[in-house]
Amino acid sequence: MDITRLEKQIAFIVKIDELKQILRRTLLMDASRRENDAEHSWHFAVMAMLLEEYSAKPINITHVLEMALVHDIVEVLAGDTYAYDAAGYEDKLKREQEAADKLFGMLPEDQGAWIRSLWEEFDAEETDDALYATAMDRLQPLLHNYYTKGLTWKEGHVTSDKVYKRMQPISKAAPELGKFADFIIKDSVEKGYLKK
Amino acid sequence: MDITRLEKQIAFIVKIDELKQILRRTLLMDASRRENDAEHSWHFAVMAMLLEEYSAKPINITHVLEMALVHDIVEVLAGDTYAYDAAGYEDKLKREQEAADKLFGMLPEDQGAWIRSLWEEFDAEETDDALYATAMDRLQPLLHNYYTKGLTWKEGHVTSDKVYKRMQPISKAAPELGKFADFIIKDSVEKGYLKK
Repeated sequence: MDITRLEKQIAFIVKIDELKQILRRTLLMDASRRENDAEHSWHFAVMAMLLEEYSAKPINITHVLEMALVHDIVEVLAGDTYAYDAAGYEDKLKREQEAADKLFGMLPEDQGAWIRSLWEEFDAEETDDALYATAMDRLQPLLHNYYTKGLTWKEGHVTSDKVYKRMQPISKAAPELGKFADFIIKDSVEKGYLKK
Repeated sequence: MDITRLEKQIAFIVKIDELKQILRRTLLMDASRRENDAEHSWHFAVMAMLLEEYSAKPINITHVLEMALVHDIVEVLAGDTYAYDAAGYEDKLKREQEAADKLFGMLPEDQGAWIRSLWEEFDAEETDDALYATAMDRLQPLLHNYYTKGLTWKEGHVTSDKVYKRMQPISKAAPELGKFADFIIKDSVEKGYLKK
């Protein structure tokens, strides 16, 4: 047995346990507490399984699930950047690149390169798989915001035009889900969950 | 758009958010709190991605990831049964079957049957995919117990023979990981984390 290889893999597996402590802005559906990145990644992946039929383009679901599972791992070191936080986004790239070097560098070289490529593909939002994955990553917190009556939108003074813009990848990847997302936003404005 | 179909899928996606509140006995690696089922499912799936090379048999990783993501969903209604709780295991099957009927019944029929078949295959531990998935499901809390110095083993008065027995699927599915698990158990006994 190549102990060094397995030891590296186990060290990485132990390290990423910290993703369970990286809190997102999103609240659980019952608003009892904030959601963490590990929970979000799981939910996003299950959604990707169940909503594949709405993808405009054929996708490789294995690849999408793998992206879902690792897309936030850099946040173990870089922290979560709130979607509607312009200042946080300024140094997001630099913080996340450094985190990727450290974290994926813990793995055997072939696997580090593989996980990094999944993360980079997801972040670039260019391939059909990445676009579908991004749609799931956006739809998940939209549902949370809707079912918690826009609590975190209100807290962040978010307006509907920003949410429409943020949700654009959904229409692009899965038009029918895009219509559904539009309905959710419109209904949120009507119900007073979200400012126009 | 078939609204009824999408509505069912969304209702299920919203409902399973509750998995984030089903606590396992396992503690996070830093022992700060108990882990929940959604976090566990995510961690298990990432491990399955990274440790596939150790599987004795060729596996279908897509299928394994899908099993990992849904294997605990019934616990939204049935609750978590501690691995070393003999009394809890007596009515586990009945509780979980009823939960599966209700939860998977929320989905469109084809998808309900699909998710149920994934869950049943995982639970039966018979196919090569299910056996590899089970190995990951066992190795994950073993690591947590080891890195938290056996806190939950001590709490539950668990002895090493029970842990060896519980970890048997690891050796069967991935002999090299089985050797590693044996080392962890042996070392835990030596370090006083686990009673002989």
